[in-house]
Amino acid sequence: MERKDQYRIAVLGATGAVGRKMIETLERRNFPVESLKLLASERSAGETISFAGQSIEVEVAAPDSFEGIDIALFSAGATASQVFAPEAVKRGAVVVDNSSAYRMDKSVPLVVPEVNAHAVDLHQGIIANPNCSTIQLMVALNALKEFGLQHVVISTYQAVSGMGQKAVDALRSEVEEWRQSGSITPTVFPLASQDAHYPMAFNVLPQCDVFLDNGYTKEEMKLVNESRKILEMPELKVSPTAVRVPVLYGHSESVAVRFEQPVSPAQARAKFEQAANLVVVDDPSQAQYPHPLMAEDTGETYVGRIRQDLADPNTLLFFVVADNLLKGAAWNAVQIAETLIQRA
Amino acid sequence: MERKDQYRIAVLGATGAVGRKMIETLERRNFPVESLKLLASERSAGETISFAGQSIEVEVAAPDSFEGIDIALFSAGATASQVFAPEAVKRGAVVVDNSSAYRMDKSVPLVVPEVNAHAVDLHQGIIANPNCSTIQLMVALNALKEFGLQHVVISTYQAVSGMGQKAVDALRSEVEEWRQSGSITPTVFPLASQDAHYPMAFNVLPQCDVFLDNGYTKEEMKLVNESRKILEMPELKVSPTAVRVPVLYGHSESVAVRFEQPVSPAQARAKFEQAANLVVVDDPSQAQYPHPLMAEDTGETYVGRIRQDLADPNTLLFFVVADNLLKGAAWNAVQIAETLIQRA
Repeated sequence: MERKDQYRIAVLGATGAVGRKMIETLERRNFPVESLKLLASERSAGETISFAGQSIEVEVAAPDSFEGIDIALFSAGATASQVFAPEAVKRGAVVVDNSSAYRMDKSVPLVVPEVNAHAVDLHQGIIANPNCSTIQLMVALNALKEFGLQHVVISTYQAVSGMGQKAVDALRSEVEEWRQSGSITPTVFPLASQDAHYPMAFNVLPQCDVFLDNGYTKEEMKLVNESRKILEMPELKVSPTAVRVPVLYGHSESVAVRFEQPVSPAQARAKFEQAANLVVVDDPSQAQYPHPLMAEDTGETYVGRIRQDLADPNTLLFFVVADNLLKGAAWNAVQIAETLIQRA
Repeated sequence: MERKDQYRIAVLGATGAVGRKMIETLERRNFPVESLKLLASERSAGETISFAGQSIEVEVAAPDSFEGIDIALFSAGATASQVFAPEAVKRGAVVVDNSSAYRMDKSVPLVVPEVNAHAVDLHQGIIANPNCSTIQLMVALNALKEFGLQHVVISTYQAVSGMGQKAVDALRSEVEEWRQSGSITPTVFPLASQDAHYPMAFNVLPQCDVFLDNGYTKEEMKLVNESRKILEMPELKVSPTAVRVPVLYGHSESVAVRFEQPVSPAQARAKFEQAANLVVVDDPSQAQYPHPLMAEDTGETYVGRIRQDLADPNTLLFFVVADNLLKGAAWNAVQIAETLIQRA
């Protein structure tokens, strides 16, 4: 990428939950924006979204939309990415893609800037943004990498906004329906696209995304495969359980990590405290620990409940929380763009 | 205990969330009740509760209340149990105690009837009902005991009703406040008795009960210590993380168990299907798995998401759900009473 003072930016999926956060984050970060083009499907085109005091109309995405674009932030789903990313790259743009389309592609870097910023240099036009639940886990695990990560057992507590704005609206509607009638007619959770639906309000669903043949969900396998790629540890053992909870914003993760050597909570805390954008909130005597409402609207990852396994000095348990739309999506994507221009 | 056709029953803590469920369960099970005495603190005395077509007035508990009682079901907290259990036993009653007061007492059996009914025979007047999150875990783990349990990593998703009726009311109030003002003034969660409070609605709190000096909560240590006692495996390794979620009724548990030998999901499923009061709900292709709303108002424990660890054939992952007020408390206590009279 050519070094410039300002960049011509496009956001694909501008009206979605993550797209809107990308636009807000570009503004909040004072990203050097020469021009901002907002793109979406026909359904959402025509809406206007404000950016830095201007009102920008959302256009229908087409291959030509990417003419003259330097950096395109994509958050419109894997299919849209597969259609438009090659078109954008052909026209000279670098695509930062928040979908799963290219994450496991060997020629595409998968980047959490605090962990593997160097991988940005290897891009061939597309840089993939990892899955939300993976990103926050990476920020925490990377801080402990030198102790020798062996096995990660993780159970997640994932917010509905990970399924998009419609799921946020659906949880609110379920709460209204429950107030009025005492019951809920489920239509959206755990997945709008499948036949079986369950209430999400006042419930917990051990299904995020579709099931694969091995009995794990796609979300769970993302935690395994993306972690291995980002940490450059192809043999890392990861045992994932991904669970949706009635939270609007912010994913939580209960993590147990076995290391090659004994690691004390104090050693881990020291490493966590040195890590960029990782906040240690860990004082049980004052009931201080991470929780999703604390993380909402922030770009940091929070870690707490740091303690040694009762049975194994080589294993630590901790709890990790981040805003899934920001560090888990929009902010990490903008961070990748920042890394790209810093290293240009 | 002398075998009789009908028994004189007392319920201490009759107006609480669990006490009410005990009374309902005695009725639903057609427990052979000769007489039912309902006891509570002064604050709740005078209320009437219906049982089998009668309206029974709640009396203030006193030592003499237990004169002539055969079986006393206690659910009024550890302090009340410590005061009244010796008085009840002195007067010839057998106490089934739902509090934590006597659970780890070596002379007190700690019983999940599907697991260790035989332990009832050893009672010296008091039989302890385990903690809610332990009970459902025991029903599932016991089914797999013959494979050689080595290490259990568990993360919980616990309903607010585990903190009593006040917490149920508080979650409802928080939802109302959030609807009206968009914010929540927290006063009850994670514990009414501590200074630091956080919203529970649309949030997740990695604290159930108070913290101990080792960095674990009391709830987490109950999972460790009670499991060892009930399974009669004093060396069992348990790595617990207990988390409160905005669910009214029903605890969920994400469990990873390492065995002494490889165990296939099919082997585990076969054992689960043979276990009493354990329902296998496990068809990912049809999105069938346990969730709290499924378990509400039932006495069964539900298990699903049964799968082998990706890295270790000796480890299985699964998800366990039960109604924390019923199998986790009232129903297990009545089951203990049923076991007691069956074995008399």
